[in-house]
Amino acid sequence: MALLNENYLKLQSSYLFSEIAIRVKQAESKNVGRKIIKLGIGDVTKPLPNSCLKALHKATDELANEATFRGYGPEQGYDFLREAIIKHDYNSRNVHTISADDIFVSDGSKCDSGNFQELFSLSNSIGVTDPVYPVYVDSNVMAGRTGSIIDGRYGNLQYINCSSENGFTPLPPNKSLDIVYLCSPNNPTGTVMDKELLTKWVEYALKHKAILLFDAAYYAFIRDEQLPQSIYEIPRAEEVAVEFRSYSKTAGFTGTRCAFTVVPKQCLVYDKSGTPHKLRDLWFRRQSTKFNGVSYPIQRAAEAIYSVEGQKEIKDLSDYYLENSRLILEAFSSAGLECYGGKHSPYVWVNAKRDSWEFFDKLLNEAQVVCTPGVGFGACGSGYVRFSAFGKRENVIEALSRIKDLF
Amino acid sequence: MALLNENYLKLQSSYLFSEIAIRVKQAESKNVGRKIIKLGIGDVTKPLPNSCLKALHKATDELANEATFRGYGPEQGYDFLREAIIKHDYNSRNVHTISADDIFVSDGSKCDSGNFQELFSLSNSIGVTDPVYPVYVDSNVMAGRTGSIIDGRYGNLQYINCSSENGFTPLPPNKSLDIVYLCSPNNPTGTVMDKELLTKWVEYALKHKAILLFDAAYYAFIRDEQLPQSIYEIPRAEEVAVEFRSYSKTAGFTGTRCAFTVVPKQCLVYDKSGTPHKLRDLWFRRQSTKFNGVSYPIQRAAEAIYSVEGQKEIKDLSDYYLENSRLILEAFSSAGLECYGGKHSPYVWVNAKRDSWEFFDKLLNEAQVVCTPGVGFGACGSGYVRFSAFGKRENVIEALSRIKDLF
Repeated sequence: MALLNENYLKLQSSYLFSEIAIRVKQAESKNVGRKIIKLGIGDVTKPLPNSCLKALHKATDELANEATFRGYGPEQGYDFLREAIIKHDYNSRNVHTISADDIFVSDGSKCDSGNFQELFSLSNSIGVTDPVYPVYVDSNVMAGRTGSIIDGRYGNLQYINCSSENGFTPLPPNKSLDIVYLCSPNNPTGTVMDKELLTKWVEYALKHKAILLFDAAYYAFIRDEQLPQSIYEIPRAEEVAVEFRSYSKTAGFTGTRCAFTVVPKQCLVYDKSGTPHKLRDLWFRRQSTKFNGVSYPIQRAAEAIYSVEGQKEIKDLSDYYLENSRLILEAFSSAGLECYGGKHSPYVWVNAKRDSWEFFDKLLNEAQVVCTPGVGFGACGSGYVRFSAFGKRENVIEALSRIKDLF
Repeated sequence: MALLNENYLKLQSSYLFSEIAIRVKQAESKNVGRKIIKLGIGDVTKPLPNSCLKALHKATDELANEATFRGYGPEQGYDFLREAIIKHDYNSRNVHTISADDIFVSDGSKCDSGNFQELFSLSNSIGVTDPVYPVYVDSNVMAGRTGSIIDGRYGNLQYINCSSENGFTPLPPNKSLDIVYLCSPNNPTGTVMDKELLTKWVEYALKHKAILLFDAAYYAFIRDEQLPQSIYEIPRAEEVAVEFRSYSKTAGFTGTRCAFTVVPKQCLVYDKSGTPHKLRDLWFRRQSTKFNGVSYPIQRAAEAIYSVEGQKEIKDLSDYYLENSRLILEAFSSAGLECYGGKHSPYVWVNAKRDSWEFFDKLLNEAQVVCTPGVGFGACGSGYVRFSAFGKRENVIEALSRIKDLF
């Protein structure tokens, strides 16, 4: 008899965004005469950059001829893309500790951050911030690293509390953790870790021989040159950190799908006898066994981001969404609400001073505006909501006007 | 201290195709004055069908405008593709037991067949044929379902021997297995299971409440209408079988990347108390947590395969490779060697009557032709080699001529 992986039964029955979708559908059916504006999910709305479109057409034409046709690509992604990444995303910021060999091109950071835990023993202690991007948690639940859920928290998982007290940017804990997920600029809170704080985390990982899984999906929204865009801007981070990056938010690739993960060859994990092993080689084995690379035209589209034209276009894109962020932040701040993020991030995290879902429902049913209840990201998100800046400008302005009228 | 998943240390140090690549590189460095012809790996060489190219260009243009731009797609893939699949791949063959709800579009069958084992308990007994596509084995090793390797076989894994005695198309075993991987048309042997044999497997699975993981990546090469292209052509298969399909070999998508997996809602797995659960819902949860869908233009390219033009083009493509198969099969058969496959399959499986790697090296170094050593697919492949029909016609003819001269 085929038995299931019972860890799946521990998962909370409904994924946050599914529950939101159900409530939005109910609200739509009421049809109050004005459209529902969605500032909930972090999905982009602006067209793909022109340089990417041109590259997609050109690569498609290459697939039309036997002489230029491409079958299976290199397992880690094409050299042209991995070398452009090293040059433009890292060397340009004085990061020279990682190389193209350490880059693994993939179809999404959700996949990579969800799959990466496979490389680790089930016995490791896993740290996640609260609030947190649900994928880090759920993938560890599925793997069997947690107990059952009690009061919204899984047993055996180590929650690192974030709150107004630490400005939603937590210090390392006093106890020893083996694997820690960090996200900066943060989803959902929009907060950014500065070099000083990130240095403390790297020192913590070095001391405890821990691994930091650093999600930098939103790095492109950082405008302050003093803030780190990559964890590898911190000395010795290459020994303890894996970095996830995505073109989804950087270049509007949510429907086009391309991302990459950096696993530096200096980064070590240990077997039970204490012998070190290269984490990079384990990820190579995982990816070459269970993944077959990203579509060739899509890799060419990603490469085009690094052209002069592409760099300008993605700057314009993130500028557009950052202006939305600024408007949202200003609206709630000036209404006297405590806000986080919104400055180097497409997310604004607002203290609603009431139950997250209650506020969500009020906004949905009385202003026809969708946000994301903060409690969906963890117990510490209770009383907060997240606004996404990825909407169209006129919708953001209209939504803020409706909310102002409501309160 | 971060500990690794020690199951990775059980994996054989070198993946088959990596070892082949090393030997080919050595042979290339000798430079004997004629090019090396590769009939090893199953990678396609013909251009993408015109209908797919047109769809890629059109979908790229849609991403250029805000009104037609697409961000995150539906979690299981777009309706337009899933409905085309149901209509053309299943309803047209009188399969009406599955629906678009059961289809999960993905970026590759390697990913899906590698990831699917996550849904099952570690305590299940896993059956694989020998010889076998290595991904089925390695993904279970990584998950911890096997012991260490001894004489080329992993402990706890149940090997189903294939040989000339059963024509490399095995009957179900006498003992009870929980999960069984089947592949037809088979990689590497090129053999096809007929309805009678597949019915026995479905009956076996029904009797034992087992799950069949059926890999139909090569269904498009079947020309005999009496042979099943899908396991769902067998009565009640929807209760016990998952089917993996790919456009890689069907439509030349090895570098373009699109595939799908069918998980019928009738298909059940059980928890320890014997309560049934829908396997489909578990896979939905897995995919919506750890996967973010296939690129929109690529899904449009896949849809185009189901147009009248597309159907003709993919028929022409598989006809081309089948003619290569026929030439390879004829050459070795007429030389008096025992052969399998090559008729409804792009692979020809040849009894080399000597050590697989010895034959591989002889062909590589004396005829400058690359095949795949059968022993790389399992102990029962010892003494056999696999020829792939995915090369260019002139290369296949030249390779066969060189081999004829050699023997």
